[in-house]
Amino acid sequence: MSLAHGYAAQDAHSPLAPFTFERRSPGPNDVRIEILYSGICHSDLHQARDHWSGALYPMVPGHEIIGRVAEVGAQVTKFKVGDYAGVGCMVDSCRHCEHCNADLEQYCAEGATWTYNSKLRNSEELAFGGYSDHIVVEERFVVKVSPKLDLKAVAPLLCAGITTYSPLRHWQVGPGQKVGVIGLGGLGHMGVKFAKAMGAHVVMITSTPDKGQDAKRLGADEVLVSRDKDAMAAHAGSFDFLLNTIPVGHDVNPYVALLKRDATMVLVGALTELEPALRGVNLMFGRKRISGSAIGGMAETQEMMDFCAEHGIVSDVEMVPIQQVNEAYERLLKNDVRYRFVIDMASLERG
Amino acid sequence: MSLAHGYAAQDAHSPLAPFTFERRSPGPNDVRIEILYSGICHSDLHQARDHWSGALYPMVPGHEIIGRVAEVGAQVTKFKVGDYAGVGCMVDSCRHCEHCNADLEQYCAEGATWTYNSKLRNSEELAFGGYSDHIVVEERFVVKVSPKLDLKAVAPLLCAGITTYSPLRHWQVGPGQKVGVIGLGGLGHMGVKFAKAMGAHVVMITSTPDKGQDAKRLGADEVLVSRDKDAMAAHAGSFDFLLNTIPVGHDVNPYVALLKRDATMVLVGALTELEPALRGVNLMFGRKRISGSAIGGMAETQEMMDFCAEHGIVSDVEMVPIQQVNEAYERLLKNDVRYRFVIDMASLERG
Repeated sequence: MSLAHGYAAQDAHSPLAPFTFERRSPGPNDVRIEILYSGICHSDLHQARDHWSGALYPMVPGHEIIGRVAEVGAQVTKFKVGDYAGVGCMVDSCRHCEHCNADLEQYCAEGATWTYNSKLRNSEELAFGGYSDHIVVEERFVVKVSPKLDLKAVAPLLCAGITTYSPLRHWQVGPGQKVGVIGLGGLGHMGVKFAKAMGAHVVMITSTPDKGQDAKRLGADEVLVSRDKDAMAAHAGSFDFLLNTIPVGHDVNPYVALLKRDATMVLVGALTELEPALRGVNLMFGRKRISGSAIGGMAETQEMMDFCAEHGIVSDVEMVPIQQVNEAYERLLKNDVRYRFVIDMASLERG
Repeated sequence: MSLAHGYAAQDAHSPLAPFTFERRSPGPNDVRIEILYSGICHSDLHQARDHWSGALYPMVPGHEIIGRVAEVGAQVTKFKVGDYAGVGCMVDSCRHCEHCNADLEQYCAEGATWTYNSKLRNSEELAFGGYSDHIVVEERFVVKVSPKLDLKAVAPLLCAGITTYSPLRHWQVGPGQKVGVIGLGGLGHMGVKFAKAMGAHVVMITSTPDKGQDAKRLGADEVLVSRDKDAMAAHAGSFDFLLNTIPVGHDVNPYVALLKRDATMVLVGALTELEPALRGVNLMFGRKRISGSAIGGMAETQEMMDFCAEHGIVSDVEMVPIQQVNEAYERLLKNDVRYRFVIDMASLERG
């Protein structure tokens, strides 16, 4: 065991505050990572405030973690001390079910162990996340990070990045396709960058007209304002694929209308009820499809990191010291960030 | 023009009653069919009573039509007088859009012309359906019917049959797959027969335990009672495909839980709001898919008719005289039919 320092929520209603806890010592397959940067994901806020219920406190959020390997177990083969490394939403899974065997640990039949707000595998001990000075993780759940990239802007790739990369790859987005990215936030801005890098004609679909110019800077070929009914009608039935990054329940019917026959919209942000309700007839006429996707497996996460290094893709970030995490949450609630807060963990007073 | 006799709804609240109207004379590509049998689809009731709004009155329902060709236009090539013929939900479409060119007239970009509750193409004249003594239809929208089959039991194939056959084919249901058919009514009982004939392991999923034995008679290998939470949990994540035939809005979440990773549930019955609302998280964990499907194109409808002749598949029907159509609607509302009412048009007093 070693003493770790971070910030935690103690219940759904109090601000995050300094918190000291014990981390296990690295086992033979583990690496210990000194955390340099930790992204703030919208889901950190949802979980810290128990919006999805079942929150486990104390909670140290953070699952977009970039750091430097400080210690490796005897059987570790992928990492050596000094390497840059990333940890995302998962730190463990059963490793023997059909999904784990297919490198899709996020769909583990027994449930993956999440980086925080989860119990460690076969244990009552809580998993604590990235708003802290170090973390110990089995190497299967750690990815290599190219030192070529701007590391602070790499952190959000571990969640916002893989969450958008995985469905774009799975549904084979590429040249000749018209692809819409719905919602311009942490996920959406990565979706635009990836879809563009994959060769698609990218349309940013946003309710906020003044984000239009920024969407084009990020790589969008067109901007479609979802509140403009005439514009929505003009694009009806024209999209090969839609990546829906809206982080809350919403009316999906107007977006379904944008799909071509047999085309798919994939939800990556909205975990809760899709209200007003989906109308069956909107799927039937045109055999339109709705699906969802959750992050990506560890092999695909590494593939995405390599793709980013090759294409020079990182997140657009705004740095905050850990002491301002609560203010950052308030701004996040107002969608006031372009496009991801990242905590500089150097700001943490280490023990 | 020739005088036709049938039964019509004059508004949303009155019973269907005898109605005389004019049918156009056959053009060069048309066939005139003397109607022998007309199935009663659940949607006849929805439309006659304006449940979906926008009903056009007077309305002669009926889109599961079997009859004998009585007259053919000069350019008709597929039919001769005396042939048995079927007409389903459509009688026309634009014939030049990408969907029509792909033999998917039901998704016509300009909107198909429906057999009733629709206006004739480029006209203000109403289309009148199969609860009548004859109908005139362009041959592209008429299918050949094998005289080997029991004709009165063939009528429901034109809607209930193609509606279930088409998605089972499109999603390539076959041997080695576990396929669930949700809802045992007019559509569901055809879904069971088709999925079985295609070689799948078929599970009938019903809220009505006493339909279980009948489902097995129809070909189901297993019965799953949707109200039995333990049984539903035991089948979680195990289905390769679900055909959802429930004809009204309902909670789809418990059925989504039955799907394997990357598997699809297709809605063919519920046109309205799916309430309580779908939860995004239920699609995300396992990349589960929901889609819909509407009837089938004319080429596929002919393929289905041929498949039925080859496999000896017809609908289970209960015959009613046209004078009892209103009583049949009341029984349909109570789900009291196994599994399709068919009107014997010989009961109609012809002019």
